[in-house]
Amino acid sequence: MLGTELDNSLLEDILTQVRPLIGRGKVAGYIPALADVSPYNLGIAVCTTSGETFSAGDADSRFSIQSISKVLSLTLALTRYQESEIWQRVGKEPSGQPFNSLVQLELEQGKPRNPFINPGALVVCDLLQTRLTAPRQRMLEVVRQLAGMPDINYDRDVARSEFEHSDRNAAIAYLMKSFGNFDNDVITVLQTYFHYCALRMSCAELARTFVYLANKGQPLGSDDALLEPRQARQINALMVTSGMYDGAGEFAYRVGMPGKSGVGGGIIAIVPGEMCIAVWSPELDAAGNSLAGTAALEKLAQRIGRSIF
Amino acid sequence: MLGTELDNSLLEDILTQVRPLIGRGKVAGYIPALADVSPYNLGIAVCTTSGETFSAGDADSRFSIQSISKVLSLTLALTRYQESEIWQRVGKEPSGQPFNSLVQLELEQGKPRNPFINPGALVVCDLLQTRLTAPRQRMLEVVRQLAGMPDINYDRDVARSEFEHSDRNAAIAYLMKSFGNFDNDVITVLQTYFHYCALRMSCAELARTFVYLANKGQPLGSDDALLEPRQARQINALMVTSGMYDGAGEFAYRVGMPGKSGVGGGIIAIVPGEMCIAVWSPELDAAGNSLAGTAALEKLAQRIGRSIF
Amino acid sequence: MLGTELDNSLLEDILTQVRPLIGRGKVAGYIPALADVSPYNLGIAVCTTSGETFSAGDADSRFSIQSISKVLSLTLALTRYQESEIWQRVGKEPSGQPFNSLVQLELEQGKPRNPFINPGALVVCDLLQTRLTAPRQRMLEVVRQLAGMPDINYDRDVARSEFEHSDRNAAIAYLMKSFGNFDNDVITVLQTYFHYCALRMSCAELARTFVYLANKGQPLGSDDALLEPRQARQINALMVTSGMYDGAGEFAYRVGMPGKSGVGGGIIAIVPGEMCIAVWSPELDAAGNSLAGTAALEKLAQRIGRSIF
Amino acid sequence: MLGTELDNSLLEDILTQVRPLIGRGKVAGYIPALADVSPYNLGIAVCTTSGETFSAGDADSRFSIQSISKVLSLTLALTRYQESEIWQRVGKEPSGQPFNSLVQLELEQGKPRNPFINPGALVVCDLLQTRLTAPRQRMLEVVRQLAGMPDINYDRDVARSEFEHSDRNAAIAYLMKSFGNFDNDVITVLQTYFHYCALRMSCAELARTFVYLANKGQPLGSDDALLEPRQARQINALMVTSGMYDGAGEFAYRVGMPGKSGVGGGIIAIVPGEMCIAVWSPELDAAGNSLAGTAALEKLAQRIGRSIF
Repeated sequence: MLGTELDNSLLEDILTQVRPLIGRGKVAGYIPALADVSPYNLGIAVCTTSGETFSAGDADSRFSIQSISKVLSLTLALTRYQESEIWQRVGKEPSGQPFNSLVQLELEQGKPRNPFINPGALVVCDLLQTRLTAPRQRMLEVVRQLAGMPDINYDRDVARSEFEHSDRNAAIAYLMKSFGNFDNDVITVLQTYFHYCALRMSCAELARTFVYLANKGQPLGSDDALLEPRQARQINALMVTSGMYDGAGEFAYRVGMPGKSGVGGGIIAIVPGEMCIAVWSPELDAAGNSLAGTAALEKLAQRIGRSIF
Repeated sequence: MLGTELDNSLLEDILTQVRPLIGRGKVAGYIPALADVSPYNLGIAVCTTSGETFSAGDADSRFSIQSISKVLSLTLALTRYQESEIWQRVGKEPSGQPFNSLVQLELEQGKPRNPFINPGALVVCDLLQTRLTAPRQRMLEVVRQLAGMPDINYDRDVARSEFEHSDRNAAIAYLMKSFGNFDNDVITVLQTYFHYCALRMSCAELARTFVYLANKGQPLGSDDALLEPRQARQINALMVTSGMYDGAGEFAYRVGMPGKSGVGGGIIAIVPGEMCIAVWSPELDAAGNSLAGTAALEKLAQRIGRSIF
Repeated sequence: MLGTELDNSLLEDILTQVRPLIGRGKVAGYIPALADVSPYNLGIAVCTTSGETFSAGDADSRFSIQSISKVLSLTLALTRYQESEIWQRVGKEPSGQPFNSLVQLELEQGKPRNPFINPGALVVCDLLQTRLTAPRQRMLEVVRQLAGMPDINYDRDVARSEFEHSDRNAAIAYLMKSFGNFDNDVITVLQTYFHYCALRMSCAELARTFVYLANKGQPLGSDDALLEPRQARQINALMVTSGMYDGAGEFAYRVGMPGKSGVGGGIIAIVPGEMCIAVWSPELDAAGNSLAGTAALEKLAQRIGRSIF
Repeated sequence: MLGTELDNSLLEDILTQVRPLIGRGKVAGYIPALADVSPYNLGIAVCTTSGETFSAGDADSRFSIQSISKVLSLTLALTRYQESEIWQRVGKEPSGQPFNSLVQLELEQGKPRNPFINPGALVVCDLLQTRLTAPRQRMLEVVRQLAGMPDINYDRDVARSEFEHSDRNAAIAYLMKSFGNFDNDVITVLQTYFHYCALRMSCAELARTFVYLANKGQPLGSDDALLEPRQARQINALMVTSGMYDGAGEFAYRVGMPGKSGVGGGIIAIVPGEMCIAVWSPELDAAGNSLAGTAALEKLAQRIGRSIF
């Protein structure tokens, strides 16, 4: 599939095209720390498997990565558990439901549908809590090394604010516990979970961090593989079917790449074998995915002629 | 991604490996015409975008393609309707529910989640009924031309038997009608729908028929594109998220290709830009997908080193 | 429980009190024949077990009794079937759902929760269709005799109009048929069902007709019991738990009598051992029960000091 | 309605008749303290509004009253709140769902269907926590006075054991909190709730305690009304539609009295104006109500010719 050459001016051009969409979405408002972010932020960054980087707009501004962290926690779990240990506790199927619904969780006896909705990510955090002595510190180490930025950190205001609005997630965790699918103290795991969500990273840092998914599990600037090639492919597969809340089908249809979004307005997308792209625009569409961010990825896919399909 | 060269002996080898799985699944038993098929049938065929073909086992035996026909009816609809006319009546998201559930259909006011579950395919047939004067005949013409086999036909016993067990699908159609999302006579559309499901085709014919999805919408042996490149990609995207009933996530995870299955035990899978693969083994897994067929596709993907991820 | 003596002027007084509520509800609008009824109709009638009658307002105007007929069809079924034959096909529990929902019906494999929601009444009509040669004619005979009015009839415009908007009920019937809980032709049974709903009766006629439920199964002016005393009590019990759609709890709480409502704005209520009361006011509350009618029954219960509780 | 005269030998006779049912139900097994109770316990007691008492079998053995306490907590709430303050936070409709389901609670935005399922009772306890300085102590005082037995107490083993298995109820409470329908600390309210459930009382004590519901809100041996007559009727109404979990319809149909059951195997039933009856048999039917206890009430209702219908 041929297309325009990828460079900074192409990215600039795309941002110019999608900027008029700002105003048509809605910034996540369930906690003040997110609601206060300016909707005019707009950034994009690309990191290729060979380490080339491109960017435009607010690509170096850090924001709350929120559910994008669910990919990191699953990755971390895959380094500490046999795969079967993970998949007996969380499924691999799309949910067909809002991201924080308890309905399916009750009907399916406490087993979340996939690791990228809240219940699934909570189970993954519960797994990490069991095998890591300091799961928050360990995550920071991993992310700092992947991004090559030793000052990446948690936004403690966001983490605290999330925790103060944690009743729904507490309900989810207790429901799973009632079915025997949650081992550790609920409050402790929620604290870990909210810290992961509260990681502050820029598009440039995200693109570099997640390029291992485009590179058969191999991070940039490291001799050690983070995941096996098969595992990287599997995470990409899960992102296609379940990475965009209840908008995965639409995203695959329009963008044609594995992706994972967060309610902070960030999205990462993978072109297997080639690159990771990260975008940021805080306003969300009805499914909870960055509205202008999705449009930017769609345009980029068209312009450079990339789609996994 | 490098891998073994694709040839007939590789396909033979794969069938030998998966044959022991026969006995672990269950042949679809809701109509006698399907229940009577021997579980020992096992076939695989590949057709590349350049027209090369490979096959092994019962690749030339015809069987009931069932829901694989849903891809054909969507394709046909895309040739007769503006895209927006289709997508305002059927969604693009995975359902997270069994293929014939009415629950989500009621909660979401008669709009099916995607065109590959029964309610969605019925809406697509309703669309075809509106714009085609002879929708059954037209489908035969399309399929015969795509497959290059003028004797492909409907299995009238299967169609009749399906119709005699059509209460659930009638309920689905009437429910959509009650929400204003069904225009034609229910019985007429059900008859069309069941005929499409009752198409009898072999793996070799299926692989050749659907290679347009690997070839940017361009069928073999024709100068006319059936779909635009973008539309072919979009169908592949929908197959990844919704093509395997409530087993799409698992299939993407294990096989890594867009695919569509039928309860007759057939599956088609696409390697974009390269080939279409068709397998047949009548026994199904718990999600309703061919058990040995899925395993054969998984092994083939590994051996030839192909995955969209 | 003592209270004011029951007479016509008490009933007049109550109508005066509730008339200001007209304008706060909504006349059923799903078919024109119902939507066109004037909201200012307001009537009440009482018939005691000894045959005394009282009335006020539009007590002699006939209207579409709609779901009140579900009590008649159940009564008729009890005269033609062993009880166990009925209760193996329809339950006795409140549904906790809107009256025409398919969700619970699918989850509970085609067995309706009770005979007073649409699915349950359709099963009862299916039972009648099996054992009566002319179920519409037979119902007319029964009602005419109970009411002592040989000119009671079906409103054929309403029946036709209902049938033209019957998709939802057809979906319900086909869904039950798919579970093996529906024996006769769907269209035929729907025709019977809609005719029963389209019975035109006045409050005075309804009160006299249903007094057998207050009188141990014994109708007025007949030597033959229609039901056994136990069966009359059981129907009253079912009306308390399931007679008012998803408003049964509120009705029991406020009125304290077994009751059955119809979307035509009629309600019948039973004071066991004493009387049947019928009210009519076309505007409905959010649960689909006559708004002013419920208020009139509440006031009457207070004034005459009657409640089963 | 005439019937046999009520005396101890009639009650003995009824217990003899229902004793063979022991073995057909299942003792609640979710906590050891309940699972260890002998299934052979069988008792019945009646207390009339004039203070006459009758009993048979193990009528003086205390057991865990469990959900029967939900009637007491609602009664207590009615003495401390305006009715509208209660009913804006909990509904009055049957749930059509298992007693501890979260499905409807999520769909209906955190408002429980009625005060006699777990979510509703938790909201009532939350209300009590807000207005009572020592809700556990206050409940003991109320119950001791109503029963005339100063040594009634909580079974601390049961309360502790319930709390150790409280994940499901914690999930329910947190879900309501996420919708803004829960004010106090979840753990604190759960402790109160489990203590109420862990009250140990005998049939004789229960019959005397709850006779106020048969007596227009007036307890025995007190000059002060506990509730207004209207409120007593309303609680009876709620018990008929929602007092027996998902078996309220069947209980009304068979027994014909307002009733409330607990998983400890106790049931209280009310004959308005006449008496309260309490039965105990630990084995439960599929809906979670005492199997032999329900049968005993059904037989008693027949023998003495009492039914509210």
